[in-house]
Amino acid sequence: MYKTVDEKDLNYLSSIIPSERIFYGEGVSEDYAHDELGGISRKPDVLINVLSTDEVSRIMKYANDNNIPVVARGSGTDLVGAAVALEGGIMICTKLMNHILELDENNLTVTVEPGVLLMELQAYVEERDFFYPPDPGEKSATIGGNISTNAGGMRAVKYGVTRDYVRGLTVVMPNGDIEHFGSKCVKNSSGYDIKDLIIGSEGTLCIITEAILKLIPKPLESVSMLLPFVSMEKAIEVVPELIRSKASLTAIEYMSLDTIISAENYLGKKFPDTNYEAYILLTFDGNSKEELEKEYSKVADMCIKMGAIDGYFVDTDERKKSVWNARGAFLEAIKASTDEMDECDVVVPKSRVADFIKYTHEVAQKVDIRIPSFGHAGDGNLHVYICRDSMDENTWKRKLNEAFDLLYEKAREYEGHVSGEHGIGYAKKQYLSLQVGEGQMKLMRDLKKVFDPGNILNPGKLV
Amino acid sequence: MYKTVDEKDLNYLSSIIPSERIFYGEGVSEDYAHDELGGISRKPDVLINVLSTDEVSRIMKYANDNNIPVVARGSGTDLVGAAVALEGGIMICTKLMNHILELDENNLTVTVEPGVLLMELQAYVEERDFFYPPDPGEKSATIGGNISTNAGGMRAVKYGVTRDYVRGLTVVMPNGDIEHFGSKCVKNSSGYDIKDLIIGSEGTLCIITEAILKLIPKPLESVSMLLPFVSMEKAIEVVPELIRSKASLTAIEYMSLDTIISAENYLGKKFPDTNYEAYILLTFDGNSKEELEKEYSKVADMCIKMGAIDGYFVDTDERKKSVWNARGAFLEAIKASTDEMDECDVVVPKSRVADFIKYTHEVAQKVDIRIPSFGHAGDGNLHVYICRDSMDENTWKRKLNEAFDLLYEKAREYEGHVSGEHGIGYAKKQYLSLQVGEGQMKLMRDLKKVFDPGNILNPGKLV
Repeated sequence: MYKTVDEKDLNYLSSIIPSERIFYGEGVSEDYAHDELGGISRKPDVLINVLSTDEVSRIMKYANDNNIPVVARGSGTDLVGAAVALEGGIMICTKLMNHILELDENNLTVTVEPGVLLMELQAYVEERDFFYPPDPGEKSATIGGNISTNAGGMRAVKYGVTRDYVRGLTVVMPNGDIEHFGSKCVKNSSGYDIKDLIIGSEGTLCIITEAILKLIPKPLESVSMLLPFVSMEKAIEVVPELIRSKASLTAIEYMSLDTIISAENYLGKKFPDTNYEAYILLTFDGNSKEELEKEYSKVADMCIKMGAIDGYFVDTDERKKSVWNARGAFLEAIKASTDEMDECDVVVPKSRVADFIKYTHEVAQKVDIRIPSFGHAGDGNLHVYICRDSMDENTWKRKLNEAFDLLYEKAREYEGHVSGEHGIGYAKKQYLSLQVGEGQMKLMRDLKKVFDPGNILNPGKLV
Repeated sequence: MYKTVDEKDLNYLSSIIPSERIFYGEGVSEDYAHDELGGISRKPDVLINVLSTDEVSRIMKYANDNNIPVVARGSGTDLVGAAVALEGGIMICTKLMNHILELDENNLTVTVEPGVLLMELQAYVEERDFFYPPDPGEKSATIGGNISTNAGGMRAVKYGVTRDYVRGLTVVMPNGDIEHFGSKCVKNSSGYDIKDLIIGSEGTLCIITEAILKLIPKPLESVSMLLPFVSMEKAIEVVPELIRSKASLTAIEYMSLDTIISAENYLGKKFPDTNYEAYILLTFDGNSKEELEKEYSKVADMCIKMGAIDGYFVDTDERKKSVWNARGAFLEAIKASTDEMDECDVVVPKSRVADFIKYTHEVAQKVDIRIPSFGHAGDGNLHVYICRDSMDENTWKRKLNEAFDLLYEKAREYEGHVSGEHGIGYAKKQYLSLQVGEGQMKLMRDLKKVFDPGNILNPGKLV
């Protein structure tokens, strides 16, 4: 159906891109055959490290004219197979397009290439007293990837998600045309909002080659508090109360003892406290120390009344490191604790978080499989891991499907969504279809066709 | 090309909607022939006051099957002809769908019908200590209309625009299908973001029949400050400094003496000060009086150093009333001051606001026409009015076009957009096309076709 890249194609590609940035056949590293999702793997015919919008445009035009599929890839940290070249073809890697192009202090924007890593961007702007609020756990993901999945992260409770910080995009369309959507402007009611259609489209509509991001002034103060509870039920019960109290919280994360122990083992580092079954981690930020103190004292009192054993400040450098390193390592730690795993990144209304976490325990029992979870209790986005441990292949497949079916069915019942921040990619298409129905799936396929009539851009994903 | 509504159609419509809510021919009030834009006017064949999503669905299905154009209308306060039935047909008026359906304190959302007025929503949630931040000047617009134009308003500097507060939409598609996009959930990375494509689409893709809106806790304190300057140049010069200073401002509005005088004449009420040429109105909000005091003292000092004559607090009830009533009446006052007018609602990067306002003065001189303006200096969205005064028709048309051409050309040069918050509608299509180019216009037309292959929904608008 698609054309395989052959010598003639390679010759053309080498005429527009220096050959030291082109890898072919055996020259393509195994790393580019997969992302962080287990189970699917395929190398692209050719891998190209691009340097500019213009290069992407020339490659796309050629691929489109010759019916060669193209997949764009950043760091490849995604969990749903979105960056796997299912049909071979060309992989465009943006990792060398990693320049911060402009910090505009008059418009509070930063303009970046898509291969800039989240951690690089955060460090760059914070050194200059600005703040880029989206804070997904995976700091080595690229900004291009973050935009393509509308990544969320921990600070969504207060600050929203990646979408809320993308002011403008430069993209290459499947036919090679270069288009700009949005700008540095704060407001825009000029035609259909194509920028937001592209955000979260997982590289299926066009390739992002530049982004203008909104910044805010960096909050002067930030403090976190760790609250232990005797059970996850007790811990999670405080979340709706916190939300109803209108306390100004930046992040509300939950974590279970077994996840913390996994992280301790994985990192070889101690967590500040491992005496209790469940923990809530709260973050507050603002410009006034006094205001913050008032706020967290009120919240700590409330939580202790509701069953928190204590409220540890995460204030010393050492404690910050031990807590945040553990939080950052949860995914890798769970991965390391099992032969294989797959993830369910549902989002439910905040009021349903407690019920959903309880339900994961029921499913674990019913299916007889280990299901650790952690995540963003304050915004309803849970990261639920189905662990293979040492099951045989058939049992694993059966139990995984059984658990997924139950979990996604419950998410639908709660009027949630299949994915809060990791996307649909290849792995979650069937559940998306169950959630939104055939009418909306057709609408999405038709929208895809408008952008990409030849279906050469990231085929087999999302729709 | 389209079918005119005839007796057979009326009979069918009367079989699904009680006839006291159907108006036909002479029975349709002249008010429904136009919006707030001068110059275009046409009555729909039939006007229907709908009560439910289901009614809208049945009407749409019939209209689609019979090739009858349909326009949805809220309060009809728009300024670009978006709510005018250019092709006749059916007008669906949502003013009776004006119920607030649910305040969900656990998820911080409010669910509303589209005909709820902005002022009704604001009052309802603020009485309950919640806050709906978008604050367009026209408080009698409906929420459905606000969503359809992605209305912005004064508080966008701090809080963003309508788009940022729409979590979910129930809509009726052109074929009558009912679809839900989004939900109460905070995060969503599950397929293409169709919700945001609908926001700002001016009723051309589907009809919004229900919206889930995000609320935030109501700030405990809010204070405004009025700063007089000897000239608009001096006034506007402080804006980039305010932005660079990272002061936490909710609104930064500018107004000229002539606009204020127009408002005084229109309202028959005095403004607190009319001794200077230009004024900046700042608003601060937050939860701590002390913090707010610190913030506005710093800002006032800065402004006075930069040429502000004084800094009046808008604190007493009387002063608040006189300032905000005047601010709210600017548009009507300018309208009342001239035989006819047309409006340019450009948005430019914040750093270009001063340059753009200066340029409006140059254009006024060059074209020899009166061009008052006011607007959102803090977010780059200016409301610029071209006044006919007592010109004859031909001179007016010529000068209006000349002024528009110059203003929109400058907006393009500054990488701004045709509309910050009022939309494109019928009146601004040519300027949108000049801004985004044929490639993007075609893309938008193709997207429209996916939703509405028969082009029966609000034809002749936007694309």
